[in-house]
Amino acid sequence: MSSSARRRILLSVTGYRSNVWEELLSGEFEVVREPDHAEDPTIEYAIVWKHPHGVLARLPNLKAILSLGAGVDHILTDPHLPNVPIARVVAQNLTQHMQEYIAWRVLDHHRQGSTYRAQQAVSTWEELSQPTASDVSVGIMGLGELGAAVARTLQGLGFSLNSWTRTPKQLDGVKSFHGQEGLAPFLAATDILVALLPHTPATEGIIDYELLRGLRRDNRIGGAVYINGGRGMLQNEDDILRALDDGTLKEASIDVFRTEPLPLESPLWSHPRVFITPHAAATSDPVHLAPLMLDQIARVERGEPMLHEVNRDEGY
Amino acid sequence: MSSSARRRILLSVTGYRSNVWEELLSGEFEVVREPDHAEDPTIEYAIVWKHPHGVLARLPNLKAILSLGAGVDHILTDPHLPNVPIARVVAQNLTQHMQEYIAWRVLDHHRQGSTYRAQQAVSTWEELSQPTASDVSVGIMGLGELGAAVARTLQGLGFSLNSWTRTPKQLDGVKSFHGQEGLAPFLAATDILVALLPHTPATEGIIDYELLRGLRRDNRIGGAVYINGGRGMLQNEDDILRALDDGTLKEASIDVFRTEPLPLESPLWSHPRVFITPHAAATSDPVHLAPLMLDQIARVERGEPMLHEVNRDEGY
Repeated sequence: MSSSARRRILLSVTGYRSNVWEELLSGEFEVVREPDHAEDPTIEYAIVWKHPHGVLARLPNLKAILSLGAGVDHILTDPHLPNVPIARVVAQNLTQHMQEYIAWRVLDHHRQGSTYRAQQAVSTWEELSQPTASDVSVGIMGLGELGAAVARTLQGLGFSLNSWTRTPKQLDGVKSFHGQEGLAPFLAATDILVALLPHTPATEGIIDYELLRGLRRDNRIGGAVYINGGRGMLQNEDDILRALDDGTLKEASIDVFRTEPLPLESPLWSHPRVFITPHAAATSDPVHLAPLMLDQIARVERGEPMLHEVNRDEGY
Repeated sequence: MSSSARRRILLSVTGYRSNVWEELLSGEFEVVREPDHAEDPTIEYAIVWKHPHGVLARLPNLKAILSLGAGVDHILTDPHLPNVPIARVVAQNLTQHMQEYIAWRVLDHHRQGSTYRAQQAVSTWEELSQPTASDVSVGIMGLGELGAAVARTLQGLGFSLNSWTRTPKQLDGVKSFHGQEGLAPFLAATDILVALLPHTPATEGIIDYELLRGLRRDNRIGGAVYINGGRGMLQNEDDILRALDDGTLKEASIDVFRTEPLPLESPLWSHPRVFITPHAAATSDPVHLAPLMLDQIARVERGEPMLHEVNRDEGY
């Protein structure tokens, strides 16, 4: 295809700022929101977030699929997925936002934000006993781009760090655990659990009551804390509520849910010890991401592999 | 005085965990909470926090005064202050706590915590536009031990940093301003103002309406933010309320006040855009501080100067 031709690209996104994306891509592409016909041989690239399953199978000349986020579970669950390379987004801007979100939530739990807000509401001046960050251990599940960056940020703030990964991974100053046999000792050494695993068949529902029960509750911050900035499908939300209500968990900050938007009837909305954000931990600015997408397409055009290609067997 | 004698020390503290202190010091000293008589020649050291003025003048053999905090304004305002060396606390633990507090408050304003909490209260799932830390500038007034450490922490989180000091001070990666003529350009470049100045006659009431009016309001976080982890006497609280109510300030986090505890009638308690903590930003654990105090006393006994002695003319 000559560079002067008006190339066509599929932009199939749900819940993102699609108009901004369309504008950013329109300089180089004719942006198609849905294929016109049963088959569309003119489209070679697809940028997707929670696309309608089956739509990609209608593009016989598709060369690559680009996910708008770090996760690709929304792509791999399509039963009619064409056999072309898939790439995740790894963007400095997205990673930075996740570092900010996790640091913010860890500090708010560590510094007893909810208790101080409740005291202020009744004009109560009472200093709480306050441990130092080094007295508190944060355990990160998942040590990919995001998990490793978050670990460095939390180390900079003075926290003690543990990590748990499927296969062995080491990071300076982080006490590492791995595999099924490493899970119990990881949890027993962790005060604040941070879930940053990819969503795969192996991790689906991994955050359940039994896992939360393994966290260290007898600690300097008055209980175990759960933070999820990864994927909603990692967690069993009924189990989280049970754990909060029986003292297994002290507090939680949750950005992602099994069903999004979080249904109005979920008791998580009004739980006094849960802080909810609407999958906003690390949404990246399209202005930062669009050049990365165009660079990935240029790689394919040059016959090079894309960066951060997904291994379908591992699921990320 | 022989080391086998039971030495006496004055512990005159208001609002601290005085029983813990008494226990920690009692291994080496007989701890006196108030001098017995009009004059007490047996006391050579005093550990104080907001002591009753005049009490130190009754100790004719006093060798040194040790403040329990980084500030010494509560000592220097005593009109009957004996002419002996005074030392401030500079403790890794106290500095660490201040780094945590400021990082926590800056992140909560930057990541729009109050808006997300309000949205959760009405079960609203709505992602807010979110700038990156590098798009936001934090301006620190005061670049002593605490200010410099806080600047490093905020740099690690990705924020842009400005500093303002009385006399010129440089720190890598921080845009520095100083003196009266540097104040307006410092404020005009600052989205989040962090007050960490010592309280001296020159800084009393420096945070007034006119100063707040100079902050950058047309910014990526929707307004100017004020954070005070330093001294309450730096600020005019009526001016802060006026600035909040007319849009000069978007939000504030305040840990210290002109009168503490903050009086029940203060409108700050119930202001929806003010977060209050009870002078808890950087109270240090007595277990961490007591060895430093004993080390200071050992220095005096050996005829050495103490660490972090106060310059009475400068007031810190």
